[in-house]
Amino acid sequence: ASDLHHSCQWGSGIRWGDGPTDTGMQRLALSQDDKSVRDWFIQTMKALKCNVTVDEMGNIFAVRPGRRSDVPATFIGSHLDTQPTGGRYDGILGVLAGIEVIKTMNDMGLETEGGVGVVDWTNEEGARFPISMVSSGVWAECIPLAHAHNLKEVPTVASLPTAASAPETMKSALQKIGYLGDIPCSYKSTPMAAHFEVHIEQGPYLVSANQRVGVVTAVQAYRWFRLNVIGRDTHTGTTAFEHRADALYAFAQMMVRAREVAASKGCLASVGIVDAKPGSVNTVPGQVSFSLDIRGPETEQVAEVEKELRTDFDAIAAAEGAGIGKPCRVEWTLDFDSPAVKFHEDCIDCVQQSAQAVVADASIADTKSLVRTIMSGAGHDSVFTSKRVPTSMIFIPCKGGLSHHPEEFSTADDCVTGASVILQAVVRYDRK
Amino acid sequence: ASDLHHSCQWGSGIRWGDGPTDTGMQRLALSQDDKSVRDWFIQTMKALKCNVTVDEMGNIFAVRPGRRSDVPATFIGSHLDTQPTGGRYDGILGVLAGIEVIKTMNDMGLETEGGVGVVDWTNEEGARFPISMVSSGVWAECIPLAHAHNLKEVPTVASLPTAASAPETMKSALQKIGYLGDIPCSYKSTPMAAHFEVHIEQGPYLVSANQRVGVVTAVQAYRWFRLNVIGRDTHTGTTAFEHRADALYAFAQMMVRAREVAASKGCLASVGIVDAKPGSVNTVPGQVSFSLDIRGPETEQVAEVEKELRTDFDAIAAAEGAGIGKPCRVEWTLDFDSPAVKFHEDCIDCVQQSAQAVVADASIADTKSLVRTIMSGAGHDSVFTSKRVPTSMIFIPCKGGLSHHPEEFSTADDCVTGASVILQAVVRYDRK
Ligand SMILES: NC(=O)NCCC(=O)O
Ligand SMILES: NC(=O)NCCC(=O)O
Repeated sequence: ASDLHHSCQWGSGIRWGDGPTDTGMQRLALSQDDKSVRDWFIQTMKALKCNVTVDEMGNIFAVRPGRRSDVPATFIGSHLDTQPTGGRYDGILGVLAGIEVIKTMNDMGLETEGGVGVVDWTNEEGARFPISMVSSGVWAECIPLAHAHNLKEVPTVASLPTAASAPETMKSALQKIGYLGDIPCSYKSTPMAAHFEVHIEQGPYLVSANQRVGVVTAVQAYRWFRLNVIGRDTHTGTTAFEHRADALYAFAQMMVRAREVAASKGCLASVGIVDAKPGSVNTVPGQVSFSLDIRGPETEQVAEVEKELRTDFDAIAAAEGAGIGKPCRVEWTLDFDSPAVKFHEDCIDCVQQSAQAVVADASIADTKSLVRTIMSGAGHDSVFTSKRVPTSMIFIPCKGGLSHHPEEFSTADDCVTGASVILQAVVRYDRK
Repeated sequence: ASDLHHSCQWGSGIRWGDGPTDTGMQRLALSQDDKSVRDWFIQTMKALKCNVTVDEMGNIFAVRPGRRSDVPATFIGSHLDTQPTGGRYDGILGVLAGIEVIKTMNDMGLETEGGVGVVDWTNEEGARFPISMVSSGVWAECIPLAHAHNLKEVPTVASLPTAASAPETMKSALQKIGYLGDIPCSYKSTPMAAHFEVHIEQGPYLVSANQRVGVVTAVQAYRWFRLNVIGRDTHTGTTAFEHRADALYAFAQMMVRAREVAASKGCLASVGIVDAKPGSVNTVPGQVSFSLDIRGPETEQVAEVEKELRTDFDAIAAAEGAGIGKPCRVEWTLDFDSPAVKFHEDCIDCVQQSAQAVVADASIADTKSLVRTIMSGAGHDSVFTSKRVPTSMIFIPCKGGLSHHPEEFSTADDCVTGASVILQAVVRYDRK
């Protein structure tokens, strides 16, 4: 846990309390701060006698060799990048738990059949380059390398001090910090026996039920869109409502409608980015672009929400500007599609047994109720590793279920529990 | 009219047609393009034997002397700055008509009692520095000089290529282009006998009734606000709607409500600028700022809309986040307040008689119906001059009533009519 906060010296974010670790994080993928923590990670892993490699997406793989060199290592992975106003646990915990596992294995002199690796995946958040989990996606050969390399950074985020002033692509950003490795980014070049990931829940279920460990069995589906609403610039003071094609007014109605429709189908719909042009107090905006993030337990539900919103947004656009015969139009672009995922039974079993064992060690009466199976609301690199190798995840509680917020917090106890569970899960898997 | 397009070479904006003049304008106040057109304006007026002075707000006064030097000149004024996606007529027409008037007087060897002046007022649009008519406001001693000098440019507009990358203040921008004059900006230092202004209507009344001239008797009231909605950043994928304090969702509801309330009271309410932070696809925005422009024929109506919206916005904010006991909050800042204005009877009479005469010259049967009295929906520098000296305005029709849009257009005929009416109005006023 002290290492966790140590690693947070690079990219400390918004301060929310007086304590030395009472700040959030702002460590956008491939920023200078990300470079610093990567350098530290590599140095640390080398000191722990791991072999370190970096691939074309900047993914860093550090492997502690096992008895056999002819079988792939079992990996513990997560990410060191954060949201622009992120916290100290999302992703970071997963990599730091991996380091702890390797340290502990070294301390105990534990030998494994295959190697045990720790991986830092690049740009998991999708906050700087707008595809989440993009680098595990390339590794899984689900996202083409060129598409990922050409991704442009999000302008709203680019305006933050940590980012460059002219928009970078992922490739130029990788080059800039010296992390464009030469190993092909693929599960074929860097094979894994399995992938385990420990993460804060980022939701309220564990913490509100006072439970310690979530055995993650599935991840909900999500789709990310960029939408453009095209209306007509005009004067705010001289243009009657019925003569407007106000793209921002259309947007406002769309956002209200999106929540209505998503809620009616047990899904979520959220807008994180909005940009209205030309951006003048007394000009009705003629152009608005915004992001739309739709999620739901089943892929089909997300598709249904999308379908209904496509119809509804068209109707909203058509009504705004109808009076002048020049209604608004709306265009959709799909940036990212992540269908619902079910994790691998073998990995889930290893986690389940390890969680029971760790919680039992804590000698609390009713251990069973301290562990629950859970679905992840957020995406994780484990989503993409699961396409190629057996995968599952471990959740620990976080305060108020809050994440993507500077005050994101998990107790040191819970972090240690998470690390202990993943250590046991890896060992169990290795012995299978 | 050829001069008008000549002056548009500095700051040409979005192209909408094939013709050489088929572009809009993007000449933000105090940009390099604004400097170029100012330099041209001064050179032109000096060549026409006018005396030119520049005050502390960069207002440029060019006076053609009259017989008497002990009485103030009668001024024709408007502005050369534009919206970021503006057209070739808004403001520009008024200054160029002034130049035409001086040229014609020189050509005819016309002597006037007092002098006749042309003034280019700085930052009328309020697009770059968010108070419209700010420099005539300082001249009228309605806005303190220091307040105007310290105004910061709007970030959304500042990101345009014409503006600097770090936000400028009005004072620094004036200095940068060499237009921080040393004459005090005040009606006491630069007195006027009267102020006349010709402008495109920017609305649909003249053009749709096929009328040629609007005798402007009044200007509607408006208020500009900046609002902040403070909610809570959180994860879009793991946070149920009832656990959110989504500042952007609150904004969307507010914008929808603003139109409802304004419409019910015969007013307008518009949002031109919106900024959501942190601006990440998968973070629910915890902070949104936006502009709100409320207008109505009477000052009291605008106040009523404001009052109702303050209540409604509080209610919207209180509901979003109530589930977590941390509802959104909304804060209002008044940037600018322009009460309704009635112009001066003497000036209105001069314009009325001149308009009738010009239209009669055009030898069309029913001249009366070609001229109408009209209220201005937009603010103009004449609003502030009217606080200190007799003032009125002349409107000419514009295509589709469209303004603050690149395709803004008035026919050359209508522009000439406007210039002829203002010439006569000035002469009539001088003879009173
Ligand atoms: N865990 C996490 O926040 N991942 C980012 C991708 C997502 O938005 O779900
Ligand atoms: N005429 C004009 O567009 N003036 C700008 C001030 C306003 O918004 O009314």
